[in-house]
Amino acid sequence: MSDPEKDMREWWRSEIIEMEPGIIRYRGYAIEDLIGNISFSQMIWLLLRGELPDKAEAELLDIALMSAVDHGPQAPSIAIARMAATCGVGLNNAMASALNVLGDVHGGAGEQAVELYCKIAENDDFERSAETAVTAEIDRYLENSGPYLPGFGHRFHPVDPRAPRLLEMVDRAARQGIVSGRFAAIGRQIEVELEQRKGKRIPMNIDGATAVIYAELGFPAALARGLFCLSRSVGILAHAWEQIQQGGRNKGPLPRQYLWHYDGPASRSVPTDD
Amino acid sequence: MSDPEKDMREWWRSEIIEMEPGIIRYRGYAIEDLIGNISFSQMIWLLLRGELPDKAEAELLDIALMSAVDHGPQAPSIAIARMAATCGVGLNNAMASALNVLGDVHGGAGEQAVELYCKIAENDDFERSAETAVTAEIDRYLENSGPYLPGFGHRFHPVDPRAPRLLEMVDRAARQGIVSGRFAAIGRQIEVELEQRKGKRIPMNIDGATAVIYAELGFPAALARGLFCLSRSVGILAHAWEQIQQGGRNKGPLPRQYLWHYDGPASRSVPTDD
Amino acid sequence: MSDPEKDMREWWRSEIIEMEPGIIRYRGYAIEDLIGNISFSQMIWLLLRGELPDKAEAELLDIALMSAVDHGPQAPSIAIARMAATCGVGLNNAMASALNVLGDVHGGAGEQAVELYCKIAENDDFERSAETAVTAEIDRYLENSGPYLPGFGHRFHPVDPRAPRLLEMVDRAARQGIVSGRFAAIGRQIEVELEQRKGKRIPMNIDGATAVIYAELGFPAALARGLFCLSRSVGILAHAWEQIQQGGRNKGPLPRQYLWHYDGPASRSVPTDD
Amino acid sequence: MSDPEKDMREWWRSEIIEMEPGIIRYRGYAIEDLIGNISFSQMIWLLLRGELPDKAEAELLDIALMSAVDHGPQAPSIAIARMAATCGVGLNNAMASALNVLGDVHGGAGEQAVELYCKIAENDDFERSAETAVTAEIDRYLENSGPYLPGFGHRFHPVDPRAPRLLEMVDRAARQGIVSGRFAAIGRQIEVELEQRKGKRIPMNIDGATAVIYAELGFPAALARGLFCLSRSVGILAHAWEQIQQGGRNKGPLPRQYLWHYDGPASRSVPTDD
Repeated sequence: MSDPEKDMREWWRSEIIEMEPGIIRYRGYAIEDLIGNISFSQMIWLLLRGELPDKAEAELLDIALMSAVDHGPQAPSIAIARMAATCGVGLNNAMASALNVLGDVHGGAGEQAVELYCKIAENDDFERSAETAVTAEIDRYLENSGPYLPGFGHRFHPVDPRAPRLLEMVDRAARQGIVSGRFAAIGRQIEVELEQRKGKRIPMNIDGATAVIYAELGFPAALARGLFCLSRSVGILAHAWEQIQQGGRNKGPLPRQYLWHYDGPASRSVPTDD
Repeated sequence: MSDPEKDMREWWRSEIIEMEPGIIRYRGYAIEDLIGNISFSQMIWLLLRGELPDKAEAELLDIALMSAVDHGPQAPSIAIARMAATCGVGLNNAMASALNVLGDVHGGAGEQAVELYCKIAENDDFERSAETAVTAEIDRYLENSGPYLPGFGHRFHPVDPRAPRLLEMVDRAARQGIVSGRFAAIGRQIEVELEQRKGKRIPMNIDGATAVIYAELGFPAALARGLFCLSRSVGILAHAWEQIQQGGRNKGPLPRQYLWHYDGPASRSVPTDD
Repeated sequence: MSDPEKDMREWWRSEIIEMEPGIIRYRGYAIEDLIGNISFSQMIWLLLRGELPDKAEAELLDIALMSAVDHGPQAPSIAIARMAATCGVGLNNAMASALNVLGDVHGGAGEQAVELYCKIAENDDFERSAETAVTAEIDRYLENSGPYLPGFGHRFHPVDPRAPRLLEMVDRAARQGIVSGRFAAIGRQIEVELEQRKGKRIPMNIDGATAVIYAELGFPAALARGLFCLSRSVGILAHAWEQIQQGGRNKGPLPRQYLWHYDGPASRSVPTDD
Repeated sequence: MSDPEKDMREWWRSEIIEMEPGIIRYRGYAIEDLIGNISFSQMIWLLLRGELPDKAEAELLDIALMSAVDHGPQAPSIAIARMAATCGVGLNNAMASALNVLGDVHGGAGEQAVELYCKIAENDDFERSAETAVTAEIDRYLENSGPYLPGFGHRFHPVDPRAPRLLEMVDRAARQGIVSGRFAAIGRQIEVELEQRKGKRIPMNIDGATAVIYAELGFPAALARGLFCLSRSVGILAHAWEQIQQGGRNKGPLPRQYLWHYDGPASRSVPTDD
């Protein structure tokens, strides 16, 4: 028999949050006990994963989050945030228009890199020879998903200054037994393999390096994109805010006096019916 | 006593649409009767206003909608649509990021102009002297809401080519008894008054002219923004689509090799704790 | 040699719109000549396709656009528009949050149906036997893309009342020589084939029927989604506006007193470090 | 004379980030020096404020950020994220549609509370008598901005469990000389005043308490909304992700079988032209 109240209460289900009047618990922990005892990064982990990380794990997550906040106004997301801020919308709206474009191309490389690393780690040959597994999965990737490996190479930076430093952080955590170091090794082996194939270094970039951290910490690939969104939202907010302080109304992409190049039909008359 | 089923059914209420299995009615009209008998513009009117317009009214609405579809890639909304289209998101997402910035500054002038026209029409002096009412409300506007009248003047077009043609359409409709022509007269009187005040013509622009149409047709001011959003969505879609066909990945606002001007602190060392 | 002005002017290119001070041309046509001479639907076609349709083609496009405007507050897009309207954002923002979710699942069926129809029409067997081509492509689709054919069947309507009426419109246009009628025939043959396979009718729905129109009119599949976005934006706007008039603040999905079902960990203590 | 390269380079200006090939500096600090030496919260502060906070300040910011991450699926933002996640869009898109609705009503109370606190602190009477300043500014607020004080009272929680705990954290920081404690005192005095006026406690809520922290740390009011957006994005992401794992397609607000209440015109015929 139909029970409307039950239908209604069960339409939305969550393991994240429980509420009663005066009570808020996240994953079973009362909010007043969490406040002051766990960090923002630990909270992010708790909400996404269901259990509290220990402090060292959360510190590594914190490092990944702080390292990818911004890449300047030439990035479409940042330019969008700044343009939106001059159009008479709220900060939340400017942030949303920008965050929205962190799609497969602009925000997906971390997710794709975690997927690639995980396939390598799960390859039958991996335990015996990481090199063999890397070679096999790169072959497979290049055949199925196009010419560029996600997380390697950068069109602006010959060496992305964030990547080696992030790998240092992973190495330190591995020495301390916080993570296995397996994905850092995979990432480095990809660099070696790419250099052999291309005859020049195609070094790991920020997406490849944060993907190493997310993989080491056990995040599923899809959350690498989510975490990047949280991280990049900081730069998006900062640039929207800076633009608001600079002022401007309806700021376009280029200085106003330089119009786009029109390459359509020449001026013509609207045909009449007769 | 609590009745969960009633609570649930009444949580969302609508006068727009009624559904049963196999039946869809908009404002009481069965969809299969509407299809083929009313136009897209009539449907827009029906959903927003509750009753069907006659064909002549709908044609005037159609004219306002078709006239404001695009103003090129220097407009933030269009640039955002094009950039978004290179970031690996869907067409709907590219459209949403762009539509989202049609805020008070980029999309609000039509709404503000309808408000201004309506205040003039409701001014006590209006019936006796439109000039007096226009003067009084312009004074009030300039005192309370800043230096520019919404709907007049354009930073690019000395004369916005859309405005005089749209007023012609309103005049024709007024002659045919479809609208009163009162708001066209108000708009023209504002132009006269502005020219006297500034010593040069500040002609009506697209927002001022579509606002005349929306006011003549009895749309509330807030819907002038909504209708502009529907109209501009067409250009947003066309540019997103053109950009997809042109290709590109993570297209920024300026040619790649021209970075922004940095005017923050010079290179410095991160302070250490001790 | 580098030419910054050229770099800048060519960074954005468009065949859609040309502007000079006082001049706006869409696809070569001056806007003041278009206003009053072409309809909103003709303008949509012109911007998306590059050339003006004749009136009969535009009328068929108009019919597709007017038929898909709304499916009520149980649709996620409409619910989102209404909730957003109670959160203190602009109409444009409420529309954007809603439009944004017309993704592969909520807004993609029309696009997928056009793709399917076009594959059938391009199948080698099609000219000889439409039945054979339909069978082959349905086999292929079900094998590669999951259990449901886009555009057929409806979880609420046993027969979607929009589909047969839209097919009537296509038939009429085919009799008048405006379209070929080929895609209507394909759609109907899919219905026949599905009934044979499933032992019951799985009738064409709104997405399948508008896809017939878009395919008949020669729109690429991707634009079927874009056109659906334009169409559904009308209902999104109407519901956001109705909600604003109803009032409410932070309206959630369910009546306030019915919380979600929590099925996570029971109340527990935050672990301490020692 | 016109200098296109200069025009281009100066069109976008930023004090936040400087880049050269291989070099990324935020506010003058090289990214590789920041990684591992400052936390995510310190980075947020650096990007928004221009200078590094000391660790104690950043910890207080961290506490505010971690405390407001989620309020469950009855909040429109969270419901939107979950619905969007079933519509075939990316995680970034689901997050954007949700973040977008953190407008004046759903996301603005913190900003409004910071403004109120700052007006009280700047009131001429404040140094002599905080009580007098609080009374005066509450009078002014209630007269100009409607019946509810932002940051006080909650429609669900008799006492918001986050607020007293957050004030404890501020008190501790004040005792340590990290902040002045002035805004905590203002917030508490507002509670006293409200109780006297209403005859019952209207306790501070999460927005009022995080506003105390943001005001104590010297953030401008507008950034209180920005920081809330960063914080709530965590819950938005967690719920979108949970919904993805639960599955579902086009999940509406209510169980499918309960339609909305239609209260528009009864079924009627479409009028014909003659």
